[in-house]
Order: sequence, then structure tokens, then C-alpha cells
Amino acid sequence: MQNNLLEHINSPKDLRLLNPKELPQFARELRNFIINIVATKEGHLGASLGVIELTIALHYVFNTPEDLLIWDVGHQAYGHKILTGRKEIFHTNRQLGGISGFPKRDESEYDTFGVGHASTSISAALGMAIASQLKGDFSKNHIAVIGDASIASGMAFEGLNHAGVTNVNLLVILNDNAIGIDPSVGALKQYLTNVKKGTQKQDNIFEALNFDYSGPINGHDIEAIISELKRLKKVKGPKFLHVITTKGKGLKQAEENQVKYHAPGKFDSKTGEIFVKSETVEPPKYQDVFGYTIVELARENKNIVGITPAMPTGSSLKYMMEEIPERAFDVGIAEQHAVTLAAGMASQGLIPYCNIYSTFLQRAYDQVIHDVALQNLPVIFCLDRAGLVGEDGATHHGVFDLAYLRCIPNLIIFAPRNEIELRNILYTVQLGLTNPIAIRYPRGRGVTIDWKQHFSKIEIGKGVQIKKGNILAVLSIGSIAKNVSEAIEELNVSHYDMRFLKPLDEFLLHEIFQKYQHIVTIEDGVIKGGFGSAILEFASENGYTNPIKVLGIPDNFIQHGSVDQLQKSIQLNSESIKKQIISLL
Amino acid sequence: MQNNLLEHINSPKDLRLLNPKELPQFARELRNFIINIVATKEGHLGASLGVIELTIALHYVFNTPEDLLIWDVGHQAYGHKILTGRKEIFHTNRQLGGISGFPKRDESEYDTFGVGHASTSISAALGMAIASQLKGDFSKNHIAVIGDASIASGMAFEGLNHAGVTNVNLLVILNDNAIGIDPSVGALKQYLTNVKKGTQKQDNIFEALNFDYSGPINGHDIEAIISELKRLKKVKGPKFLHVITTKGKGLKQAEENQVKYHAPGKFDSKTGEIFVKSETVEPPKYQDVFGYTIVELARENKNIVGITPAMPTGSSLKYMMEEIPERAFDVGIAEQHAVTLAAGMASQGLIPYCNIYSTFLQRAYDQVIHDVALQNLPVIFCLDRAGLVGEDGATHHGVFDLAYLRCIPNLIIFAPRNEIELRNILYTVQLGLTNPIAIRYPRGRGVTIDWKQHFSKIEIGKGVQIKKGNILAVLSIGSIAKNVSEAIEELNVSHYDMRFLKPLDEFLLHEIFQKYQHIVTIEDGVIKGGFGSAILEFASENGYTNPIKVLGIPDNFIQHGSVDQLQKSIQLNSESIKKQIISLL
Repeated sequence: MQNNLLEHINSPKDLRLLNPKELPQFARELRNFIINIVATKEGHLGASLGVIELTIALHYVFNTPEDLLIWDVGHQAYGHKILTGRKEIFHTNRQLGGISGFPKRDESEYDTFGVGHASTSISAALGMAIASQLKGDFSKNHIAVIGDASIASGMAFEGLNHAGVTNVNLLVILNDNAIGIDPSVGALKQYLTNVKKGTQKQDNIFEALNFDYSGPINGHDIEAIISELKRLKKVKGPKFLHVITTKGKGLKQAEENQVKYHAPGKFDSKTGEIFVKSETVEPPKYQDVFGYTIVELARENKNIVGITPAMPTGSSLKYMMEEIPERAFDVGIAEQHAVTLAAGMASQGLIPYCNIYSTFLQRAYDQVIHDVALQNLPVIFCLDRAGLVGEDGATHHGVFDLAYLRCIPNLIIFAPRNEIELRNILYTVQLGLTNPIAIRYPRGRGVTIDWKQHFSKIEIGKGVQIKKGNILAVLSIGSIAKNVSEAIEELNVSHYDMRFLKPLDEFLLHEIFQKYQHIVTIEDGVIKGGFGSAILEFASENGYTNPIKVLGIPDNFIQHGSVDQLQKSIQLNSESIKKQIISLL
Repeated sequence: MQNNLLEHINSPKDLRLLNPKELPQFARELRNFIINIVATKEGHLGASLGVIELTIALHYVFNTPEDLLIWDVGHQAYGHKILTGRKEIFHTNRQLGGISGFPKRDESEYDTFGVGHASTSISAALGMAIASQLKGDFSKNHIAVIGDASIASGMAFEGLNHAGVTNVNLLVILNDNAIGIDPSVGALKQYLTNVKKGTQKQDNIFEALNFDYSGPINGHDIEAIISELKRLKKVKGPKFLHVITTKGKGLKQAEENQVKYHAPGKFDSKTGEIFVKSETVEPPKYQDVFGYTIVELARENKNIVGITPAMPTGSSLKYMMEEIPERAFDVGIAEQHAVTLAAGMASQGLIPYCNIYSTFLQRAYDQVIHDVALQNLPVIFCLDRAGLVGEDGATHHGVFDLAYLRCIPNLIIFAPRNEIELRNILYTVQLGLTNPIAIRYPRGRGVTIDWKQHFSKIEIGKGVQIKKGNILAVLSIGSIAKNVSEAIEELNVSHYDMRFLKPLDEFLLHEIFQKYQHIVTIEDGVIKGGFGSAILEFASENGYTNPIKVLGIPDNFIQHGSVDQLQKSIQLNSESIKKQIISLL
């Protein structure tokens, strides 16, 4: 199929010149354009395919960018990007120097608010709508498009609760496809299902919150959406449109296997078949080490429970959900609830493994301090996607955790340098932990093919030496140890994996500071306040004056690209580390 | 009135021996007991008076502590404390070494979960209920008592959303008095008002979330509550009881002036009259410097808006809400929403002053990073109650902010040493700020009576010397400067107020490190990762080997007591500082 229409459309202005009758054809072209590029360049697929008609209708009916459009999370914004001046560079999506996989303010005036984490769109749109009202602009429209998984998160409720007592020009569109990355959960999801089936009265939750509710309407009937949006454009005050869509719409496999096609990797754009990598034996993903190990442990230890806020697949808790469903909980996009739920469970003697991506634990920071650490409840935080995550970019890097967790009393902080260490700490913490612990590990694969070894207990607060040398000591924490090992292979320097950011192995540190003149610290977290900073504090407290070189993430937001590229860009690749160490010798 | 009944009641077991007919009399005695003690010892009054009947009924009907009872926030738990073994020590409430003003696990087995921050009770109770279910205990009851202000916070919604798809034995009791500390706001509050008036159909929000809803019932009719609790005890699955109460019930002035009598200070227990302090001229409260100054600035600068999550009185934003209501927003207990709302406003050119207590900003940490700092939107965070807050204790100290904010790129961090500095920074930031800024200042009064001086611009990133000396330099940040000034009055040492934690005044620091051999840093925040740590990083990066002594909050949770007592207990009072400095000379 040729892109006869898309070829000529580079902005919403061009789009608005089309005849309504041409829009279904245009939707097919836009959908195919996305499929063709994502098939080879990778990225998020299903979400954008599901909102093609909605995307077109919004830009067709509303006067973007004057009217302000906010996509919650932003996985679904590919169509929006292509329609708003980024068609020619869409193939650079998520690559170093290319466009971001998420809407981003400095990329386009059509991207009115940067997104990535869920459930921010209503609050942001309301802020904009209030601004317009204060400026006396009563014609501008402010539109938040939010999925049914995102709207169930507490922050979205807070936005709705405030918006409902204003009279600003706000339109919240619920893109209801019953799935986030994994299928949606919770009472609200059941409720929405009843609304769709017509078994729920029209007098509904959103009306109770003072919104002018309409829907549910078919989100793939472009004529119906346009007609409803035109009507809503004239309605004043907070409005709520309930749209039913199918994630992955238009690609059979993506519709049928929505979880896998959320971000399928490379696939055949014609058939939809995902290309299976040739069968080389690879080290496991860290997430799978977690996922398989917790099942192994939970079989034996009946007090173990697993919790994930909406990431059963991404965290690999799904293995436990399949085998021991009564003790594995997907609580939806609800990090705050997940943490305090875990605290409640721990208070009654359960052993909760609360698995949250490092970047998303930021959402539950208060609960970690106030509900877990202050009460010293032995909750086990498993922080996946710590460090640089690569193509998801600035919104998703898990680089702040070491710094923001280090200041919390009672909390143990551990980072495994490889799969075996992760496995062993997961084993250790269920043997009788008296404090909460955060275990942070990276996205992707580790370094150890033969990882499934007998369990061995890790002594809390003990670091280890992993290479002996004479002149200088490198202290690392976590999986960046790999880069250090490569960097110093030919150098006469020592390498210590400190393992615990907290408690620090002070015994070992005294030995190190007395034995070596120079110290280098390295971490895949922010330098300000992190691991290196802890070593500086130790040295200062103990009167050591050894020069200490601190390597880590600099004090700015790191953008997207492969992890290797990003590490290189901030001198954390093995070659750069080597150079920096040699310069000290 | 004599405490004929209360005299003999030291535990819920004793209570359950009373005849139901005696309970109204007992309620009167309990109420008076609280009034008499709080009148002289101070503390939170209105919330506990409002739930006396509910408290008695809960302990009468349920088998506490086997049945698990969680009080959300905990301001209302005085009756509970007195009933559960703490009658004789209730007069030590909130004092150093005395009982805590909030439920606390290590104080009593009846305090099943420590509280202080809002909206945690449903999640915690659900965690406990799931634990009971997994243990095969199907008779245990799990009860969360939550106010209408707290239940409107996102976290509570997340808990309800999860609980609604379980079949555990959970009872959520909504204590609906239409007020938190200030009157409740938002669409849910309006909705609840309609329910009470009977203008809302019974098929309501909580039923939509799969709860078995009952009520509303009169929360001061002890017979009615007992009867309903007995009925609910037999109902399985998630249940919701809507109870209407009056905050301050039983003390006329407290009922009529609910905001003032939330925590009235000393008052006449007979008449209810608050004792007015003799008219000495005192320095202003920092919160009032904020509250009056923002009004002054907003009169001139029409882009200024103010935001508070449910603290109009505590933050003194109420002055702006009274004079310029269209630009001052109380968004309810919704810190996450408050921050992203501010980001949305800033994206459209408004100048939002987002006032949040330091300890509550922990609730919006992700939003500060992801929605504000990453997009470099110039939101102005005014963090009240930073540092040690005194009698509210461990749950409320604002001691982590410097550490958890310092790792965030783009963010400016400032702490005024006095009222004039606060006033001037509030003036400065509306002149054209290009970055977000956090301004953190303490609870209580400052040091400057004549604070309302002409505005003067503060140069971003510039520290100042406030005392000249020869031997050693003390570097402080924020209002702890006062203690330093007192400590070094007679010593030949220099004192610098660095003012900005970020960006650090590196020019000044180079001068200091070259001029003085010894450096002492001091802050009223946690040592780990805070201001002192930033100075250590600077020294390390620049190769300075001057010994640096870091003073601040140690790595454990600080309990309750007066600020002076607490400072003394951690050697941050002026005398201790003096001793520590002398030991270095």
C-alpha cells in the first residue's frame, strides 16, 4: 500500500485539509508507517496502534498546538509524533541523538508536557487549564489522554478530585483498552468493564466527581470520535470522554498477544512474526534471576509473598503469579500502595519481596521512609532497572536510588555485581532479616551463564576483594563491576566489590585506606550523594587523606541511547575507566 | 465530674465489662480526661474529641489487639491510647521521653501500625488482612479508620482499588467530618456532602469499587455505632462504613472553631478559652513571612500563584486565599498532584509557589524529579517545617530534604538563615527564574523582629561571610546559623552562610579552603548525603585535604521533644557546637 495521503501530510494543518471520508484510509497509512518502522527499529508498538483513530481525530478537531494535548505515559504517542513534524526522523526513535520514545517539550511545540511515568497528565492539563483561565483565555482546550491502567493510580485520582471543583476547560479522555503493559487490575477496572457491558448505571464514578461524562464510544470509529469531540469542544467545564480501543489494533498478532507486542523488538512487518534470535546460550536477564529464584524460595518458605505494581512481565514476578498465585500480587500502577501493603504484610510476619523499577520507587519514597524504615519492618525491595536503562531515556534511568535511599536510617542497601550475587542475596534475606533492604540491579542480561548454583548466604555489610593489585584500589558497587574488571585487566590495581552501600564494610575500608594511597570509586548512579560520597564521608570521619576519585553519573539528566553509548558518553565504559585510572598511576 | 468509670478502666478488656447503658457516661469521662490534659499539656484536640464514641465502640465490639485497628494519620487516637494502657502516662504526650502524639508500634501492641502521614491506613490494613488470610485465620478483623480529607488522597484510592478485588476481612471506616486540619476540599468532598444530604443515590463510589457500603450513620450515637459494628463483624469481604462526626465534639469552642482547636495550645479546660500569650513583641513565624510576602508580591506580579496541599493555615497561604482567592489553591492532601499541577502552570508562564512541608514533599519526590526538574520548569517549592519540628516527632521531622533533593539535576536549593533572607529569596525568584528552586525553612519563629524590610535581590549561588575569624571556618546552611552564631561568639573563627546547597558557591569555597586549615560544616538535616557531604565532594574534586568536620542529624530517626531538647540530644545546640569547635582549635 502506498502512503498516498501520509506523503503529503507533515502537520496537523495538512491533516485538517483532508476530507473526513479520507480519514479511514489515512489511519491505515499511519498505522502501516508505524508498523514498518518499529518492525526494524524497535520500540513500543501496541499502544500507538490502538489510538491511531483517536490521534487523528484529536488533531483534526482541535487546533493543536494552540489547544494543548497531553499523552499520559506517552507509549501511545508515535502517531502524534509522526503527525506533528517528525515523520522524516521517526526512524531515529529512541536512538542516541534521535527523537525520544516519549513526548518531550524541547522536541516539539506539540509535545506540551514531557511524560514517561504514569498518571501525570490530568494534573498537568489542569495546571495548564487554570493558567489559561487566569490569562482570560476561555477558548483554549486542554486535553489529557489517559489509559485505564494509569487512571487507577492515585495521582490521577488526585487530579480528577481537584478538577471536579473547577470550571476550567479540561477534557479527560479515558483510553480504555483494559491493559497497561500487562492487563489492568483492580476494582476500577472491573467497574469499567461493567460500564462497557452496560450493567453499570450511567450515574457513574466520573459523574460523582463532577465531570460531564460521555461514552463509552468505539475508539476505532473515526467518524464517531470526531463527532463526539466536536460536540465536547462546545461544552464548558471538566469533561470526561470514555473511549474503548484495542491495543495493537490493525496487526493481528499484536491484538492477540498484547503483552508481547507492547514492545516486541524486531518483527516481520508483513506477517507480524517476531524474529527469534538464534539459539546462542546467553546469560540470563537479571529480572529472570529474580523471577525464577523467588519461585524456588517461595516453594520452601511459605511466608514469602511477591508484590509488583503493574509489572508482572517486566519484573518476571509473573512466574510466581502463575505457580503460586495466592502469594503473588499485581496491585496495578500503585507504587505507594505496594510499599505500604508490603509494610502491613511484614508487620504480620510475612516476608514481602516488593519488586519496583528503580525509577518508579521515586513514587513511593515517603512510604519507604515513613511506613517501612521508620518502623524498621523487614520489607525486601527488589529494584529492577537500576542504573542506565538505555533507550527509554531520561524518564526511566534508575540513577538516583543510591543517593535518595542512602539517607534513610535502618535501610540496608545492596547491589549485586552479577546474577549469582543477586540470587544469593534473595536467598539470604528470607532467612531472618531484621531490617528492610533495597536490592538494586540493572535492566538486561548479566554476565554468568551458569547462574543457577546452590544458594550461599551473604553476610550483611561485607564487601569482597575481586582482584589483587598494589598501587591503587578501585571500589565499585553493583554490576558496573564488569566494566571495572575489563578496565583493569592489565593494570596492577586492586578491585573491591563493596556490595553494600549501607551498612558500609568499615573494617574492609580501614584496610583499604591504610594499604593503598589512591582510591577510585565507581557506581552507575548519580555522583551527588551516592556511593562515592559515602566513601568520602567515611574517609573524612576517620581522618584519612588519601586522594579519592569519584566516578559515576554526572549531575545532569542523561538522555536515551544504548547503555553502551550512554556509558561512553559519560566516561563509564571500560575504556574510559581505564584511561582515568592510568592517569592516576 | 468524677471519672467513676474511667478510673477503673485500663484496657479494652475492662471496657467490655461495662453495660452498654454506661457507655455514654464513659464517653463523657473520656472526653473530659482528654480536654483536661490537653488544656495544660497541649497537643491535638479536635480530632480525638470527634471520635470518642467510635473509639469506644470499636474497642467494645472488636477483640483488640487480636483484631487489628489502624488509625489513619493518628491525630484522633488519644482516646485509643488512653483506653489501651496509657491513661497514667497520657500527660507525657509528645514530650521528650513521653508517649508519642501518634500511634507507634513499639509503644503498644494496640498500635498496630505507626502513622503520621495521611492515607496509609487502607494499604496497611489490607496487607495485614492478606497476611491473616494466608495464615488461614478467617476470623480476625482488620479495621482502618480514615478521615474524609485523607481518603481523598491518591494513596487511599490505590488501597481501595486493590482491596475491592480481594475477599479479605477488611473494614474501612470513613470518619466524615468534612475537615482535615483545614476544611476538606475537592469533588469527593462535595460528593460525600450530597450523600449525607440524601441527594446522592445509594449506588455510590465505594460500591462501585466493590465495597459493601453502609451508612451514613451518626458517629456520636454510640448505640447505633455498636449495633452497626456488630452487624459488620459478621459480613465477609471488604466493607465500608460511613460515619458522620463533628470534629471537636463536646467542647463548644472546638466545635465552632475547628481549625483553631485542631491543636489549640494551652486553654482553659472549663471554658475552652485559649490562653493568649502576653503581648511581647516576637519575631514572626517563618510561615507568616511566606504567607504575608507572597500576598505582597502577588499584588504586583499577576503571574504568581500559590498552591498548598491541605495546609492553608499551617503554611499561611490562607492570607493569599483570602485576598486573591482566584490565584491561591488548596488542592487537598494531594502532594503529587500539587507538584505536577505547578509544573503544568509553570509550562504556561505562571509563577507557582508550591508550599509543602518538607516531610510531605517525600510524597511527591517523583513528580519533583520527573515533572519539574527534568523539564527544568521554574516551579518554586517552599518547604516549610524543614529540619527538626519538635513535638510531632519522627514522622514529621523535615530532615531528609537536603539529601534527597541534592541529587536532582537542574534544581536550585536554598535555605534562609533568617526571615529577611526568606523574604528576599521569595522576591528574587519571581523576577525571572530559569530553574526550579527549593526554599526550605523551619517551623516556628525566626530571629528578626523588624523583618518587613525593603526587598533586595539575592544572587543565585552566592554565599556570604557573617563573621570573621582566623583559625577555622564554620560553614552553615539555613536557620541553624543562629546556633553557630551563639556558639562562636567568643571564638576567633569565621562563619559563612553558604545559603545555596545547589549551586554551591565554588568561588567562595576555594577562598575558604585556601584560607583556613580546618573546616566545620553544620546543617539541620541528615549527615548522609547532605550539605556536609556536598562540601566533602567539592574538596575531593578540587584536591583539598583540609580536615572537614561534618555536623548534622545522625543516621537514625529522631523522636519527639522540643526542638531545643532534640538539638541538645544530637549535639546541635549552641553549647555542644561550641565544644566541638573548641576541640578542633
